[in-house]
Amino acid sequence: MSLFKSVKIINSGKSILLSRKYGAPLRYHSTWLLDNALDSKTRDKNNGQRLISVLDIPVNTYIKSASLDKKGQNVTLKFLPKEKQVKFSSSWLASHAYDKKKNNSKVWIDPDLKTWTKTTLKSVPIISYKSAKSDKKLLLKWLKSLHCYGFAKMTGGKIESGALIQIANLFGYVRETNYGKWFEVRSEINAVNLAYTSLGLHAHTDNPYRDPVPTMQILYCLENSASGGDSTVVDGFNAAIHLKNKNSDYFNLLSKYCARFEYSGVKGTHLKSRRPMIELSPDGELIAIRFNNRSVAPITDVPYEDMENYYKAYRTFSDIINDSKLAVNFKLNPGECFIVDNTRVLHARTAYSEAGTRWLQGCYVDKDGLLSTISTMLEKK
Amino acid sequence: MSLFKSVKIINSGKSILLSRKYGAPLRYHSTWLLDNALDSKTRDKNNGQRLISVLDIPVNTYIKSASLDKKGQNVTLKFLPKEKQVKFSSSWLASHAYDKKKNNSKVWIDPDLKTWTKTTLKSVPIISYKSAKSDKKLLLKWLKSLHCYGFAKMTGGKIESGALIQIANLFGYVRETNYGKWFEVRSEINAVNLAYTSLGLHAHTDNPYRDPVPTMQILYCLENSASGGDSTVVDGFNAAIHLKNKNSDYFNLLSKYCARFEYSGVKGTHLKSRRPMIELSPDGELIAIRFNNRSVAPITDVPYEDMENYYKAYRTFSDIINDSKLAVNFKLNPGECFIVDNTRVLHARTAYSEAGTRWLQGCYVDKDGLLSTISTMLEKK
Repeated sequence: MSLFKSVKIINSGKSILLSRKYGAPLRYHSTWLLDNALDSKTRDKNNGQRLISVLDIPVNTYIKSASLDKKGQNVTLKFLPKEKQVKFSSSWLASHAYDKKKNNSKVWIDPDLKTWTKTTLKSVPIISYKSAKSDKKLLLKWLKSLHCYGFAKMTGGKIESGALIQIANLFGYVRETNYGKWFEVRSEINAVNLAYTSLGLHAHTDNPYRDPVPTMQILYCLENSASGGDSTVVDGFNAAIHLKNKNSDYFNLLSKYCARFEYSGVKGTHLKSRRPMIELSPDGELIAIRFNNRSVAPITDVPYEDMENYYKAYRTFSDIINDSKLAVNFKLNPGECFIVDNTRVLHARTAYSEAGTRWLQGCYVDKDGLLSTISTMLEKK
Repeated sequence: MSLFKSVKIINSGKSILLSRKYGAPLRYHSTWLLDNALDSKTRDKNNGQRLISVLDIPVNTYIKSASLDKKGQNVTLKFLPKEKQVKFSSSWLASHAYDKKKNNSKVWIDPDLKTWTKTTLKSVPIISYKSAKSDKKLLLKWLKSLHCYGFAKMTGGKIESGALIQIANLFGYVRETNYGKWFEVRSEINAVNLAYTSLGLHAHTDNPYRDPVPTMQILYCLENSASGGDSTVVDGFNAAIHLKNKNSDYFNLLSKYCARFEYSGVKGTHLKSRRPMIELSPDGELIAIRFNNRSVAPITDVPYEDMENYYKAYRTFSDIINDSKLAVNFKLNPGECFIVDNTRVLHARTAYSEAGTRWLQGCYVDKDGLLSTISTMLEKK
């Protein structure tokens, strides 16, 4: 399909302007074009990495000639003073357009993600371990859902210690920490972490005191005959948007000031971080939630004048997160696990009785692996 | 030492005001005080984690009475309507003060860090593997320098494959990635990454296309008889401050817009990220540099109107980073390694001849481990 009608040189050769059949014209700068050229002198043929630096592009670079082929499928450009000819496909240019309106004051969420509540999440993304191992199509669908919702379940796994690592290996690499390659989540005497007791745990993200924070978590059930110990997950991005709609000043307070988090529950470990509860990219993308009542350290980066409202914001955010209308509840059976995007989805558990046993194992995996696995599986299709 | 002269209740019990012997008085809110109480009903005795949530603190909490003991060392507070008495030491309150002037428009660097250039870094932090293993005091000093300068060297390590893992184990946990637990840095045919050729590499941070980015890197030398292949490190925080001083608009462009990074040099891996080259916390702390000419993807999050200046800023930042006055150069010998804080310090290498051999191994470690190790070693002292 031909996307462009014509090309012309503008701004004394500093840019080109491509007129489209549909939509406003698109402009591209000469330096940007040379930096992103796809020829074998600019990009390595084997690994696709850039062979030049921005300093290899002359400051006074300009476009001497520009032409669109008859079918409108390719644009050929000649650059001076360092003579170079480069060809771009129209589709590549269109898909890498940057000449568009941006609203940097707006808070936004990656369009690949869907926020949810108990009502709107029609069904929990679920797969059996057997299908995940044998059916690439089902696995891909499940991984995409895990990314999209920040949460998924798996059933039918082996009931043996360490089986969670096989789940991690389906999409990424385990992040080892002071808690080990994986850790035991069961009731202990003199527990080094409240997670290792039979107490209920408020909805939280794990290890906000760690920087970088663990980006994915697997919680895998080996025994669960205790009464109670149900699991809950809450979409933190949805909760943050709720907060924003309810009181945008509160949202701003939790995103513009850093909270502090700390953990020193065991000898030889003292972890501290200084990050906001609601993290935005500089251009307003909602990128992470950090929320954990157990490990908030004294917050000292909020000025006195804003602290009262900061605490009101924190309280309101807690209320939203604890609202049962937002939460999805379930009880894990042995051989089942759930996985959360720990930068987004909070998890909680109800208290459980000491009669019977509840034994989970947990581990952290990084999200780069998940996204890479999805990308390469999509490319193979 | 008594820090405080007197305490009084202000704002109808919503806050207290502590007058100091030296310095302006300090105010603390009732809610903040209850949330940070250190008694065994608020904090678990075993692991120090908070047992309450902010929702357990009544909205209308106020301070009924406040008293300072005779020596001025402890403040005792009584809260209502939910009756509770809490004691804080004056030193704890003083060290967690938040009633101070803050300038949130200012860019700042963690005061524990010292920026450097070739001239100002008087000597490279260095230790022998033997000392690191046997002398806790020297090890602590070296680890603190590694944190402070974001860079350190070690000598006298074993000349065997995988020896770098022993270095990692001194302070943290290896982050396994698609490149493995560690990776081979030597010249390969059809290299999947330009690092695995004999080409020179511009100063860069590793894997900016990975999110979370690797926070520490070890580069360990096993063979280095080739001519060339010298190593260089550059303090990226220092370079960013240089940029800011030279042209604050350029600094703002690189911090307010996200760049894009990408790597798909090998089958089964496709990593992408969207992060700024200069990353600030929401309150202006310089927290990370991402800089790598090989893996910058087409930048499409900068509007057309700002792209020309964005590229000027990128070029100027490149110029500063490549300025030899900033760089510390050395050649690694077998059994030697260097470690960088990959969120701050860039590394480069000169090209090397194919005569002779150059064989390095690299691995990633996370910074939370380094900081935790330093903290707990300091606490033991």
